[in-house]
Amino acid sequence: MIRIVLVGTRNPLNIGAAARALSNFGFTDLVLVQPYDASWREAKSAMGGKGLLATARVLDTVQAAVAGCALVVGTASVGSRLLKLPVRRLEYGARLIRKDPGPVALLFGSEKTGLSNDDLSLCHWLLRIPTRNEHESMNLGQAVAVCAYELTRDAKAASAKPLESRRIAAEELDRIEERLFAILETAGYTQPKTAETTRLKLRRLLRRMDPHEADAELWLGMLRQIAWRIGLSS
Amino acid sequence: MIRIVLVGTRNPLNIGAAARALSNFGFTDLVLVQPYDASWREAKSAMGGKGLLATARVLDTVQAAVAGCALVVGTASVGSRLLKLPVRRLEYGARLIRKDPGPVALLFGSEKTGLSNDDLSLCHWLLRIPTRNEHESMNLGQAVAVCAYELTRDAKAASAKPLESRRIAAEELDRIEERLFAILETAGYTQPKTAETTRLKLRRLLRRMDPHEADAELWLGMLRQIAWRIGLSS
Repeated sequence: MIRIVLVGTRNPLNIGAAARALSNFGFTDLVLVQPYDASWREAKSAMGGKGLLATARVLDTVQAAVAGCALVVGTASVGSRLLKLPVRRLEYGARLIRKDPGPVALLFGSEKTGLSNDDLSLCHWLLRIPTRNEHESMNLGQAVAVCAYELTRDAKAASAKPLESRRIAAEELDRIEERLFAILETAGYTQPKTAETTRLKLRRLLRRMDPHEADAELWLGMLRQIAWRIGLSS
Repeated sequence: MIRIVLVGTRNPLNIGAAARALSNFGFTDLVLVQPYDASWREAKSAMGGKGLLATARVLDTVQAAVAGCALVVGTASVGSRLLKLPVRRLEYGARLIRKDPGPVALLFGSEKTGLSNDDLSLCHWLLRIPTRNEHESMNLGQAVAVCAYELTRDAKAASAKPLESRRIAAEELDRIEERLFAILETAGYTQPKTAETTRLKLRRLLRRMDPHEADAELWLGMLRQIAWRIGLSS
């Protein structure tokens, strides 16, 4: 279980954006610590009382927000500040969080100042999003989105093949090749001497194109029409 | 080289947020296709002519935006729409993009409608951010941030150990153990019969605490003071 804690958030758009991203990636436990009052009201009304903001809790202290959590992780851009805590890159830190028996609290500081030294003293370690040194500081809503993504990221999917579209079956590819070859013969593109070479070239061309199942009919339809037009009986 | 193309963006905040995230992760080539005029002006003035928006190009067509690119990838939430293109999860698709000789264009559609069928017909395949089915649609600025993160994500960092903070050296740990043990002896916590067992318990306790280099002095200082207070000459 991972609880997301936003501390002292100022901008209602950021509260709304964070809640949306958390919902996108399936998080259900959101706590706000001392959000600016107006921000909180505005963010909540913008959502029409729906979504994650409807169930989010508003608390006065970070201590109360992390109650019940066995691991507390802060987020920080490191810059030149000397931090007394171990700092882990998101790729690695997210893995530790996922493996932790938990519950885990992940803290995000305010837009301007980040987490205070008091907040940091409650953290076991810090998470750093690997932005480049020259432009390190991320927008809060985007930082929450990136962390939520990495925390639910499926490492196995990185090497998976897409399922949603399938390659054309071999026999369909053969039908396309057959028809195209017949057309090219009739059109005078092939020479009897090099016909077999041409056929092989054609076969390789079709494979390189890597056409997908949904395209088989389109190809066959076009070729049928061309065949008819040049007087080739199919 | 990866070019980011925002098509028909409506909200100036999203244009600004996208540009910021791209800058965070080191992208330098941003193209906007027919952004809403007022949005574009507002976003640009909000940045004070600095950053990625200062060098972004505004073009009239997606064709012009992807000119020179060898691979064109669209982003889409899939939902129930029947897409004729292969759809790849971000974890996998980003890997393909990074391995591609390129240049690669990555397209993001407008907030309301996403990419049009015309835009999609220019794409080789689609990238899908793995949000949950019940709340699939992401905020545009956050979607750009998540893609920019994954495209620059360091897979090796996921298994790396943190460099920023070091464990206490073994001999320092021994000094802490020595001093704490002496204090406990003087305080009457240890019994002569079980002293060795207590010492072992202490040793294990200190290792479980996994203290870091920066904390060695703090521990030693506290123990020195307690030792003094209970009349133990250090």
